[in-house]
Amino acid sequence: MNLKEEALKLHRENKGKLAAKSKVKVETKQDLSLVYTPGVAEVCKEIAADTSKIYEYTFKSNSVAVVTDGSAVLGLGNIGAEASLPVMEGKCVLFKELGDIDAFPICIKTQNDREIINIARNIAPAFGGINLEDIAAPRCFKIEEQLLDIGIPVMHDDQHGSAIVILAALMNAAKVVNKRIEDLKVVINGAGAAGTATAKLLICLGVDKNICTSVREIVLCDSKGIIYDGRADLNEYKMQMAKVTNRSKRKGTLKDALAGADVFIGLSTGNLLVGDDLKKMNKDSIVFAMANPIPEIMPDEARKVATVVGTGRSDFPNQINNSLAFPGVFRGALDAKAAKINNEMKIAAAHALAGCVKPTKDNILPYTLDKKVVPAVAEAVKKAAIETGVVRRH
Amino acid sequence: MNLKEEALKLHRENKGKLAAKSKVKVETKQDLSLVYTPGVAEVCKEIAADTSKIYEYTFKSNSVAVVTDGSAVLGLGNIGAEASLPVMEGKCVLFKELGDIDAFPICIKTQNDREIINIARNIAPAFGGINLEDIAAPRCFKIEEQLLDIGIPVMHDDQHGSAIVILAALMNAAKVVNKRIEDLKVVINGAGAAGTATAKLLICLGVDKNICTSVREIVLCDSKGIIYDGRADLNEYKMQMAKVTNRSKRKGTLKDALAGADVFIGLSTGNLLVGDDLKKMNKDSIVFAMANPIPEIMPDEARKVATVVGTGRSDFPNQINNSLAFPGVFRGALDAKAAKINNEMKIAAAHALAGCVKPTKDNILPYTLDKKVVPAVAEAVKKAAIETGVVRRH
Repeated sequence: MNLKEEALKLHRENKGKLAAKSKVKVETKQDLSLVYTPGVAEVCKEIAADTSKIYEYTFKSNSVAVVTDGSAVLGLGNIGAEASLPVMEGKCVLFKELGDIDAFPICIKTQNDREIINIARNIAPAFGGINLEDIAAPRCFKIEEQLLDIGIPVMHDDQHGSAIVILAALMNAAKVVNKRIEDLKVVINGAGAAGTATAKLLICLGVDKNICTSVREIVLCDSKGIIYDGRADLNEYKMQMAKVTNRSKRKGTLKDALAGADVFIGLSTGNLLVGDDLKKMNKDSIVFAMANPIPEIMPDEARKVATVVGTGRSDFPNQINNSLAFPGVFRGALDAKAAKINNEMKIAAAHALAGCVKPTKDNILPYTLDKKVVPAVAEAVKKAAIETGVVRRH
Repeated sequence: MNLKEEALKLHRENKGKLAAKSKVKVETKQDLSLVYTPGVAEVCKEIAADTSKIYEYTFKSNSVAVVTDGSAVLGLGNIGAEASLPVMEGKCVLFKELGDIDAFPICIKTQNDREIINIARNIAPAFGGINLEDIAAPRCFKIEEQLLDIGIPVMHDDQHGSAIVILAALMNAAKVVNKRIEDLKVVINGAGAAGTATAKLLICLGVDKNICTSVREIVLCDSKGIIYDGRADLNEYKMQMAKVTNRSKRKGTLKDALAGADVFIGLSTGNLLVGDDLKKMNKDSIVFAMANPIPEIMPDEARKVATVVGTGRSDFPNQINNSLAFPGVFRGALDAKAAKINNEMKIAAAHALAGCVKPTKDNILPYTLDKKVVPAVAEAVKKAAIETGVVRRH
């Protein structure tokens, strides 16, 4: 049986992957009077008198809504809310199995930004966090921005989950090639959710003596080539990125951008590059070709030129996969009682993730199901949340 | 430890009552490739090509959203979305433990009807049904009405769950006093969610030879007395009810209404009546005094006059409780692949529920946790759904 048949069989036989579960028993009249009426009224009254007690008495302290509109699902594009459900159930299963978080899918029918924001804000009471998922760029930026003030951690995983894991991979790859991360010239191809968030995270890798550490240079490209300040066809988000990247104001194609770069990060489409294109990069180059399922350049070919090569695939070394970040990030944010997920927490997550392996060329990141990962990431995220003061008072 | 302390302890120690659970294992790379990427993409593609396959491959076939705005929670009133969560978690736990249904709470912050309707419609893709809960009348009527066409069963439990259980109780009480249900004169006090839905269900108890069977007379009262066509202060929903009840056009107080009645159904507030008030009712009267926690008349006092007495409380005989209906009703609707819950299904549920006991004065309904109840109700609801043709084609 091939992968397709096996996947269909698994989903059909189990009727999906997610279920609800009671944490309390309901066997006697007494159980019922505590779990439901009349006892539950006492719990309601406590929360009505002090809303913050919702964390003490309900599953909000451990629940996350996985919210999507189905507009950019995996590499499948805008397949809609219904067809996105298997991915969202899968995500909820990973939240539970990896992070012991109770996550539930919210697949939203409308693709109107204002309505999505309104729905997410309005269903927030029962949830301790919101994981935005598979919402197309540039709409995902606005939707996330408008949800950052609702008092619970909100993170668009396609942006920040990706950026965290890429940063961790880059930290370890830099060690392998013996370069300082601050000295790296990075080209990112793809200015969607993941590319933009990765660029933003690489711009601010930490603050020391009020000076923000960054990689040396970031050049962001989209399907039309290098993004530069003044390019006529940029949307507002690419325009913002043009102002904070590409300080040497380069123009031209992706291949032009690669000249003199240390790092190529591909978050775009398959089969864009051949080995020769990488020859213009600096010595000991790092190539993360993450388009899925076909990378921007196949790892075998990239390895002929580059020193460290990673992809999104599990059948090659150095798989760079979101699942390494989101369970630990939300676990840490919930444990810290964080009201949001800030840059410091993301960077701490990347450091912790990178610290899970002794990096070599073919092992810059831990295995996705490595039991060390979630506790390490969660602990670092929790610490950063507390240190940066984003925790709720209750 | 008293009930309050025990209830608070149970909720605090378990951090609420509901959890998520994975139905599949995630232990190996192979598991991950089936549950999540890349295998899950194949499942998404099947659903994208034929939306109805969502029932085959996801948890939609067994999931119910418990949706509230927290505007009428238990007897506590408008305590808001946060404070309602313990009740909604409790409801989800009962769905799981009694009906093996995967239910999740959606506590909506806004109390704007249009927004609530919009949110419920938009989150419907992941759910096989929607249980509306604890939304205040008369808003609950409009909200439910506007959701009846969304292709999945939607039921406001405070209306129809209550009505089903009351009808079942009435069927058995009528047997005990040896009266035909069609001959009963019924007074319902309380024209909110439960009172209105109960009146509607008693108006149409079944259709035979195209003639709708009804109880003989229904007089609906609110806090101002008998509701009659032409009373100046009625909202649109009470006005509708005035047109279909009280055919003899009576006016006056609740106590006036009781003269010559066979049945009193109280869905209002405590301590309204004394034994003497019931003396004007017909011989072998039936009194369901369901205000919670204090009934309209205490059972001990009612029993001095009435033959069958029921309340909402578990510490007296004949507890009339919603939990007897909703798990079986949704179980049956999901099993039947019903697109809605119609009157025939509700009446079938009441018949099945009534059939679970051999009725006596003190035993007109089964015990809430009686294992016979859900299968019996579900089977009857499923059969009625199929017979009345409300099932989805897929």
